[in-house]
Amino acid sequence: MRENYREQLDDILADLVQMSQTVSSAVRSATTALLEADLQLAEVVISEDEALDAKQREVEGRAFSLLARQAPVAGELRTVVTTLRMVTELERMGDLAAHVAKIARLRYPEVAVPATLRSNFVRMGDVAEKMVVTAGQTLNDRNIQVAQELRTRDEEMDELRRTQFRVLLSEDWDDGVEAAVDVALLGRYYERIADHAASMGRRVIYVVTGQFPDEDFWPQP
Amino acid sequence: MRENYREQLDDILADLVQMSQTVSSAVRSATTALLEADLQLAEVVISEDEALDAKQREVEGRAFSLLARQAPVAGELRTVVTTLRMVTELERMGDLAAHVAKIARLRYPEVAVPATLRSNFVRMGDVAEKMVVTAGQTLNDRNIQVAQELRTRDEEMDELRRTQFRVLLSEDWDDGVEAAVDVALLGRYYERIADHAASMGRRVIYVVTGQFPDEDFWPQP
Repeated sequence: MRENYREQLDDILADLVQMSQTVSSAVRSATTALLEADLQLAEVVISEDEALDAKQREVEGRAFSLLARQAPVAGELRTVVTTLRMVTELERMGDLAAHVAKIARLRYPEVAVPATLRSNFVRMGDVAEKMVVTAGQTLNDRNIQVAQELRTRDEEMDELRRTQFRVLLSEDWDDGVEAAVDVALLGRYYERIADHAASMGRRVIYVVTGQFPDEDFWPQP
Repeated sequence: MRENYREQLDDILADLVQMSQTVSSAVRSATTALLEADLQLAEVVISEDEALDAKQREVEGRAFSLLARQAPVAGELRTVVTTLRMVTELERMGDLAAHVAKIARLRYPEVAVPATLRSNFVRMGDVAEKMVVTAGQTLNDRNIQVAQELRTRDEEMDELRRTQFRVLLSEDWDDGVEAAVDVALLGRYYERIADHAASMGRRVIYVVTGQFPDEDFWPQP
């Protein structure tokens, strides 16, 4: 481990960026597993989630010992405490990707998502994945200009979910109760991944500026 | 504000205990609003959630400034950092109670939960509420003996949710797609409230003992 305090903090931030890459890849694989009924890929997502949980505990331990040994002040304290929260959010996003993969596995060899909602889920998966990527980049570059992008995508996710409900609850729905239940839960999982990514973006803004973005500009989920 | 460091920390912990009482009451009211199609009560739960969000920000701010001004070490550092996480979990539990109330409001004057699952939801609401109460008491008393109780109730919640799915997906289900979607999401919300309460219990154990409970004894959700 590096001795210098600032270097240790940079290592932790780099690990968070790397975790965000793992999560975005898990979201992409989970979506593919879901839409292609790819059992093997679903199993990969589910088992790799355990590695992410282990990584969370490891990064948490290091952030905590940094806090304990170095007693950072002001901006650096803010950063260390925020890393503790981001790592929790990344771990949750990984869990949610695994939840998607578990529904894919449960319905295999069938595809859990009915044809009428396939394009909706392609888009949901894409938006969720890109939001995780953007959140990771925002953290890596400390560039808060992309916050606006996260906000826009978050709204798109909400709109995609409203569309799902319209399709689910329309009189034309003839895919039955099981598919409806799967779709409702899957939509919730993707929405929560987006919420966590947006929340990570808010936390980066907090680290960089010392303040959370204005509630009017970007209401908390 | 009190000057003494230990007193300030005690004030924060007392606020968390009080927040857990607010949340358990929100869970109880949300369940009543849901099962009785009580629109007024649903509105109360939804609007009181905003007060809880404000309380979260206030307690967070105080915990953070304690960290910044006092640079606590060892056990006290662990406690302050853990309060930051508990307050986030309490806020989330409040959100989830509000989600339940929003479904009650959406279906009013109908009852969102079909008669076949009424007793299941009575029990779910009761288990979730009691878990929040127990988590708050655990924190208040620093008594980790109740951890076993949280674990047992958490398992009961999982079993209640499995029962829901069996009912939902049986051939006898004749309450339609909309009710099925509502039940699936409501079940998820209650399950997440239970997860957060269990997680709070784990955090209290961490604060008291310095270690999280054994994964084998009580696996993380």
